[in-house]
Amino acid sequence: MGEFHFVEAAQGRGKENYKSRAGQTVSLHGAVGKIRKMSGFAFVLLRTSAGTEQCVWEERESEFPLELLCEETCIEAEAVVREEPRARAGYELRLKRVRVLSAPARELPFAVGNREINTSFEKMLDYRPLVLRNERERAVFRLQACLCRAFREYLEGQGFVEAHTPKLVSEGAEGGANIFRLDYFGRPAYLAQSPQFYKQILTGVFERVYEIGPVFRAEKHDTSRHLNEYTGVDFEMGYISGFEEIMEMETGMLRFAMEYLEQNAAEELALRDVRLPKIDRIPAVRFHEAKERIAAKYRRTISDYEDFEPEEERLLCELIQKETGSEFVFVTHYPSAKRPFYAMDTPGNPEVTESFDLLFRGLEVTTGGQRIHNCAQQIEKMERRGMNPEDFESYLMLHRYGAPPHGGLGLGLERLTARLLGMENVRQAALFPRDIHRLTP
Amino acid sequence: MGEFHFVEAAQGRGKENYKSRAGQTVSLHGAVGKIRKMSGFAFVLLRTSAGTEQCVWEERESEFPLELLCEETCIEAEAVVREEPRARAGYELRLKRVRVLSAPARELPFAVGNREINTSFEKMLDYRPLVLRNERERAVFRLQACLCRAFREYLEGQGFVEAHTPKLVSEGAEGGANIFRLDYFGRPAYLAQSPQFYKQILTGVFERVYEIGPVFRAEKHDTSRHLNEYTGVDFEMGYISGFEEIMEMETGMLRFAMEYLEQNAAEELALRDVRLPKIDRIPAVRFHEAKERIAAKYRRTISDYEDFEPEEERLLCELIQKETGSEFVFVTHYPSAKRPFYAMDTPGNPEVTESFDLLFRGLEVTTGGQRIHNCAQQIEKMERRGMNPEDFESYLMLHRYGAPPHGGLGLGLERLTARLLGMENVRQAALFPRDIHRLTP
Repeated sequence: MGEFHFVEAAQGRGKENYKSRAGQTVSLHGAVGKIRKMSGFAFVLLRTSAGTEQCVWEERESEFPLELLCEETCIEAEAVVREEPRARAGYELRLKRVRVLSAPARELPFAVGNREINTSFEKMLDYRPLVLRNERERAVFRLQACLCRAFREYLEGQGFVEAHTPKLVSEGAEGGANIFRLDYFGRPAYLAQSPQFYKQILTGVFERVYEIGPVFRAEKHDTSRHLNEYTGVDFEMGYISGFEEIMEMETGMLRFAMEYLEQNAAEELALRDVRLPKIDRIPAVRFHEAKERIAAKYRRTISDYEDFEPEEERLLCELIQKETGSEFVFVTHYPSAKRPFYAMDTPGNPEVTESFDLLFRGLEVTTGGQRIHNCAQQIEKMERRGMNPEDFESYLMLHRYGAPPHGGLGLGLERLTARLLGMENVRQAALFPRDIHRLTP
Repeated sequence: MGEFHFVEAAQGRGKENYKSRAGQTVSLHGAVGKIRKMSGFAFVLLRTSAGTEQCVWEERESEFPLELLCEETCIEAEAVVREEPRARAGYELRLKRVRVLSAPARELPFAVGNREINTSFEKMLDYRPLVLRNERERAVFRLQACLCRAFREYLEGQGFVEAHTPKLVSEGAEGGANIFRLDYFGRPAYLAQSPQFYKQILTGVFERVYEIGPVFRAEKHDTSRHLNEYTGVDFEMGYISGFEEIMEMETGMLRFAMEYLEQNAAEELALRDVRLPKIDRIPAVRFHEAKERIAAKYRRTISDYEDFEPEEERLLCELIQKETGSEFVFVTHYPSAKRPFYAMDTPGNPEVTESFDLLFRGLEVTTGGQRIHNCAQQIEKMERRGMNPEDFESYLMLHRYGAPPHGGLGLGLERLTARLLGMENVRQAALFPRDIHRLTP
């Protein structure tokens, strides 16, 4: 056998610090975000993976015509670093040579390099591949990635194990009509509405388990709060003494995440003018009490005793913030009628459950609670609801073979991101949102 | 408004070090894995989140009857730590009191607390919720979680941003019949065969992007290598000079991951008797050359010039290991006919592509390569294949508006795990495997 060619491992790549390299020639690459022509020279703002670099083209210094560049041209460049106190970064990069790697084949429908993209909301969604290149749009998802990193770090520090559970399932966890159906080699299958059954099963394995992954809801709602596919941050923990422990874990996780963002995403936070919420401890209020307080405070009549109207969630948050300063509030003890069959009823009061929602800046971002771990209890509750336990045999293995007391929660990543960034519509917090009308891009 | 109840953040939880607490009374919880009765006393092996604790029930010391316990009973216990040189851990826990949190409602179909579960392969899959409780089974997925942590840490250190791309799509990236179809509010939709289009699009946004998430293949193969839903470790990077850079990145990532496992999962590696591969640099061989070498070395006739047979993959790995010592091998320049429409052909030789597979211990675990970034080239290749570019409008926005030269790869997490652990069947490396016959548990 002849000679081999060997692949060496990639070298680490640090962030360039141009400021300390005044006078030196540097190489960099990126896409042209914006060109601002002046007389005899031009500013060329180059969007790199790290941010935006202010480059300067000058007739006498640059060895190429300015016409070589247009917005969204991908280039490799050689430039000389020059101190420039008037530039935001304190330096600018004087372009010497460029190599065009690719150029747009079509005129842009709108400018991407401006601070804000000037087009309609619908077009912003249609042109997502282009829109996301905008630095402020991109920052949304850098922040989202940073949130996930923080969640993982916190949960793993608390002994949670990451799981990858199937999205193709034979039973829906949440029931109802809000489930996507498909044909699976001649059998009906569904898309998981959550990793609910699996994460519960895994409390018997790992004790503490989490997953950040896609969940699917075939809801026909067309609102600013709903997506038909979203990213669920799910965790579940065994050997709990009550659902208070789940809320404590979430409080810790969110506090950690906010501090993590502050320390690791300062640029993105500034780009989006984000005001991070302070999280010390989070007030909790019972569902029925919350209902009555809102009614009393805002002189509203209660029309639905089993659920919140969106306006009530907004008002409750307003009220809680005024009284406690907290932008988060746990609402506990939701009516059993509105909670799934696996929710544990409150001992002595089966009308309500050992469950909670977390509201943040007017919107529900989390649902959680303790689950039934006793087999007979679970089967009894299923039957009371007209469900057939035989349809849930593999799920019930958890209960049949000794399940620890357990509970957990599901947090909507896009909703949290949207509220954090003050976005009106949750679609803005999804890279490629899916709604009842939208399956592309 | 009345008083509030406030939820405090959870406290951190360190791993207990019982060994240093001889003589003290400690509290712990877990599931009874195994009871070994002796005369006047019994060993009760308690499966905790951290591992297995050797507890001892003794007639005179324990304030409860041994009959209270059976396998898979979840308990909270108070016990006294006693030094015990004969115990593997150097101590044992003398049970004082226990509280039964839940007990199995049905007899176990097999013992879970033994080193190996003694049942058929099919039953191992049917009883997954129970099987996974076995310590050696559980270790598989702790190792898998650890692998993901390593991948993320490495990639984030290299400037990759995590993305959550949609699994409900309007076009399949890989084409062919291997795609699940469903109804999306009256329109046809598909389950993503990979995040291919989206990660490519995102090279224009983040430059470097990765995702670890579910991918769906409606393949009718019923082999030990195929799953219909698996976890894809996908990354994509912009501004590359060639596909060699992708292989370098993977080499670095795998090397990092192996070191990471060694440092962070010693117990699980020991439980599974894992022999980690040494990764320094990885040999690379061209597809056609590999074909010919196998044929020559093993006196085989080549029946398929465009693809490997599984046996050839096995033989190639054997041969490479003999000659270079490496258990990994990159195979490069796969025939264009067998690669997707987005694969970049090799300049000057359009019969082959700038692509590679990575084989590990006889099995393909990764497919990757450079993609076409030029718009005209991409449209031309689509049309040559009889595809209609209009069906791919949103994907082509990448190319139309200036795409950096880019490439990436997809690695099958279950396949890598299976080969690493010396498992014959990839199903053993999925928490809840999905195959052509299996949609539960």
